[in-house]
Amino acid sequence: MSAFTKPFESFHVVLVEPMYEGNVGGVARVMKNFGFTNLAMVKPCMLDKEARQKAMHGLDILKSAKHYGSFKEILGDFDFIIGTTAKTGEDGNALRTPVYPEGLYNALDRKGRIALVFGREDYGLLNEELAECDMLVTIPANPEYSTLNLTQSVGIILYELSKDDFKFKNKRKKFVKVDGDLKRVLFKYYDEAVDVIYDRTQERRLNKWTFRQLIGRSFVSARESKTMIGFHRKISEKLKGVKQ
Amino acid sequence: MSAFTKPFESFHVVLVEPMYEGNVGGVARVMKNFGFTNLAMVKPCMLDKEARQKAMHGLDILKSAKHYGSFKEILGDFDFIIGTTAKTGEDGNALRTPVYPEGLYNALDRKGRIALVFGREDYGLLNEELAECDMLVTIPANPEYSTLNLTQSVGIILYELSKDDFKFKNKRKKFVKVDGDLKRVLFKYYDEAVDVIYDRTQERRLNKWTFRQLIGRSFVSARESKTMIGFHRKISEKLKGVKQ
Repeated sequence: MSAFTKPFESFHVVLVEPMYEGNVGGVARVMKNFGFTNLAMVKPCMLDKEARQKAMHGLDILKSAKHYGSFKEILGDFDFIIGTTAKTGEDGNALRTPVYPEGLYNALDRKGRIALVFGREDYGLLNEELAECDMLVTIPANPEYSTLNLTQSVGIILYELSKDDFKFKNKRKKFVKVDGDLKRVLFKYYDEAVDVIYDRTQERRLNKWTFRQLIGRSFVSARESKTMIGFHRKISEKLKGVKQ
Repeated sequence: MSAFTKPFESFHVVLVEPMYEGNVGGVARVMKNFGFTNLAMVKPCMLDKEARQKAMHGLDILKSAKHYGSFKEILGDFDFIIGTTAKTGEDGNALRTPVYPEGLYNALDRKGRIALVFGREDYGLLNEELAECDMLVTIPANPEYSTLNLTQSVGIILYELSKDDFKFKNKRKKFVKVDGDLKRVLFKYYDEAVDVIYDRTQERRLNKWTFRQLIGRSFVSARESKTMIGFHRKISEKLKGVKQ
């Protein structure tokens, strides 16, 4: 198991009576994508060639999935059960007061057996199943059509749980250096060019300000600053030459 | 068009040479889920029964999709092109310095034709295509297997763009009332019970503090407070009766 999957060892994706094997395979794949390894199922459909194909590099997860004979069986096997629902409460129905996916962040530093339970493709989780959950979560979506594909729902929840981890631990995405000195050098050369182009203070100010805004919003990196400096220094030099 | 889809009118999901019709259908479905309506494709695979089935309630989106003959054709047709990539830069490769999905929030108040471009299932977008994009975005994922299913990638990007909108505009998810007075009444009854149960100051303090922490983290609603008050008032009264 890689260092990346460690933070998510507590989490178990539990599919209750999934009806389409392609969805189950897709769940295994997206679990691998986001560093989750524990899959469990309650009375799944037949899992055959399509499930294996859709699992792609998550095939090991599909193969090692734990099977339960009923929803009741999972209750005693987990320390905390998080149910998913597309139907949110009306008039404060206590059964339907879910959090949004970010509301699960608190679970990230918990150690134990945590179940993320997803219902059937057509009916989701039954009311009596929702009632057994410690917490409910829902994905904010178009109220006119809020039922997401099962694989999609699992993917979005796992994405929310894992995204900060991969942002900062991904070896290929190290911190990008920013450098105020380089940025100021860039502005110096840019401003020189602006001063050559415009005579009126107001136009100069507007141009310099706009550039600073763009560079600011882009959160320019040191490397990018260097690239830009090279360019603007050349422009600045050229313009001065023209004026002489 | 509903009020919910309006904010995303500027956005167009553009699939470049999608290879599997099921994925195209799934994209149409998840676009509907998150309130996006504009789909376009560059030389897609044959779109037949499976695409229509997977589209579910997004069938209208699939049917009205715009088709382009080449990637070059889309360039002039959009004001801003956002490319997606699973491969992030090594050694500061300028072509591969994407933002994370939240980095697209700035685009939400822009009006114009914005393309969210997704590449082929196997190769993604080619380097020469990425070079034509105004901005790149990547989904943080397991570096050991970061290639997501096409439908999944589209879903996660659209989820990030739309989630805040649906959180606050979803009629079925109105603001939940919190009420400090009710919360304090709850603590009053809880504390009375604690004082009956424990004699030592330290134990009393620990118990009251823990309860406040739990209630605080749960961001208890007015309705829930009322429910809890009823319960704890009864406990408190019962305990006092016992002591007398």
